[in-house]
Amino acid sequence: MDIKKHFSERTSLTNKALKVFIKALQDVPQALQKSMLYSLSSGGKRLRPILLTSAYEIFGGGKEDVLPAACAIEMVHTYSLIHDDLPSLDNDDLRRGKPTNHKVFGEALAVLAGDALLTNAFSILGHNAETRNIKEKNVLDCMRILAKYAGAGGMVGGQAADLEAEGFLSGKKRSLHSNKTFFKTANALVNHIHLHKTADLICASVEMGAVLASASPKDFKHLSNYARCIGLAFQIVDDVLDIVGDKKKLGKTGSDAKNKKLTYVSLFGIEESNIHAAKLISKAHKELDKVSRSGKAKEVLHEIADFIVKRDK
Amino acid sequence: MDIKKHFSERTSLTNKALKVFIKALQDVPQALQKSMLYSLSSGGKRLRPILLTSAYEIFGGGKEDVLPAACAIEMVHTYSLIHDDLPSLDNDDLRRGKPTNHKVFGEALAVLAGDALLTNAFSILGHNAETRNIKEKNVLDCMRILAKYAGAGGMVGGQAADLEAEGFLSGKKRSLHSNKTFFKTANALVNHIHLHKTADLICASVEMGAVLASASPKDFKHLSNYARCIGLAFQIVDDVLDIVGDKKKLGKTGSDAKNKKLTYVSLFGIEESNIHAAKLISKAHKELDKVSRSGKAKEVLHEIADFIVKRDK
Repeated sequence: MDIKKHFSERTSLTNKALKVFIKALQDVPQALQKSMLYSLSSGGKRLRPILLTSAYEIFGGGKEDVLPAACAIEMVHTYSLIHDDLPSLDNDDLRRGKPTNHKVFGEALAVLAGDALLTNAFSILGHNAETRNIKEKNVLDCMRILAKYAGAGGMVGGQAADLEAEGFLSGKKRSLHSNKTFFKTANALVNHIHLHKTADLICASVEMGAVLASASPKDFKHLSNYARCIGLAFQIVDDVLDIVGDKKKLGKTGSDAKNKKLTYVSLFGIEESNIHAAKLISKAHKELDKVSRSGKAKEVLHEIADFIVKRDK
Repeated sequence: MDIKKHFSERTSLTNKALKVFIKALQDVPQALQKSMLYSLSSGGKRLRPILLTSAYEIFGGGKEDVLPAACAIEMVHTYSLIHDDLPSLDNDDLRRGKPTNHKVFGEALAVLAGDALLTNAFSILGHNAETRNIKEKNVLDCMRILAKYAGAGGMVGGQAADLEAEGFLSGKKRSLHSNKTFFKTANALVNHIHLHKTADLICASVEMGAVLASASPKDFKHLSNYARCIGLAFQIVDDVLDIVGDKKKLGKTGSDAKNKKLTYVSLFGIEESNIHAAKLISKAHKELDKVSRSGKAKEVLHEIADFIVKRDK
């Protein structure tokens, strides 16, 4: 299989669908729509939609069946980047080599564009209830999976813990109105941050694909484990690239080190981080092998696991 | 019927349920949970949950059936207030007489608390699928109603149009990257802002209650019309109170006039605004009269319509 070609076909399919869904939203002020489309069109890998469609295809369905859900997860990912880049959070000027949303549209519209992408992710997910081959009950389960992994106990919680952790390295604790942190050690904290900040949305992608395909509880569990492993590895590699990566290829400025963030690398060093990421990928392959079906889509998920540790941006 | 007593009972029922749902979310960083609860506990009227439960009760069900949906709509309302108060948006220091979320928890956590309330509104709405008497399909419809009215073509769009409109009065247009606005006249613009900024979430509340009760299309339509009328009236009265209201009772500082916002009052004056609000309330009563059922819950909706023009905060 030509995985690069497969990836690029899948990316352009997602890009087209995203534009169609956004432009179909009625009565949207022009500036808001531009701001939403700007960040959605800034050349991401569309990893989460590819994971979602592939997890679905393992069980025999066609990728077109789940395009609304695939676009929904990408919209949630994009909103999180817009808000994460805001001056009050990471204060990043560049994202994928382009000026961040608030640099182009101003902070107010960046907040609103993020809010809109997050909210309308759920209206676009709703379109999946009208899709041939998809059960309404499964779409409802997708809503719950997406909200759980993206919310306070998931991705947003990871961001909040990340904020809280900044004090661990710089020695100055930000005033977050908590006298004692609920984390015992920095190690537990960095695992919490990785799990929620990045792995959770990757878990949501795979679980949504599996649930839309009515996967058995056993297959669902193995796919979910696979997703958690590659998600954790993804964040570790991200932290390594933040230090050693080519800033031009990354399209950003290594703000984690600049902001003195608590990362796997800052705690354990580059070598041990790379070893840990490789172990996670090995476990991901094993979990995937236990899934009862085989075929091209499963191979794609194997390839994605390898891609995550091999990428240079 | 003692409407004040009914309101206060319903408010405390919502308050209790909100706390239970938020505290049941797992693995939430302490500071984030505090920030979410702070804004949820700041003494709002809980108008939207009362509308939702009453619209449901008209058709014979009990209010407990729809508490998850009622809490979801209040969480979306609360998130919108937190983000609206941010320095880059309305820059308000006070809300309901208390410091705004970002004044207490800092801007970063205020952004995240808003994001979490919005996201978890959908996970809590999901609990309604487990509720006796409630059909899964109806919960899915609620997701679509909530996302539509809260998103880019709804409430967030109203906020974006509001930003865009600030230039109309001050003479200085904010740079929103649109050379020509899509509004022909200030009149159309103010109607657009009112409809989306405030009325849309009120429509969502009533429509969600009606849909959860499997209301007939005809009853649904009349209830939706009722909601749009009271929602528009609500925003007009809000604009009037921003000018003439007792700041102590309002618990805020009349920032719309300060920020030179485009409002119904700034265009048409106080007298005509009051007349228009009264006309809308009269139409709301008529729409409600056309709903095929009668009883206490319908009376509550009539009372709410009157309350909206009579309130002084």
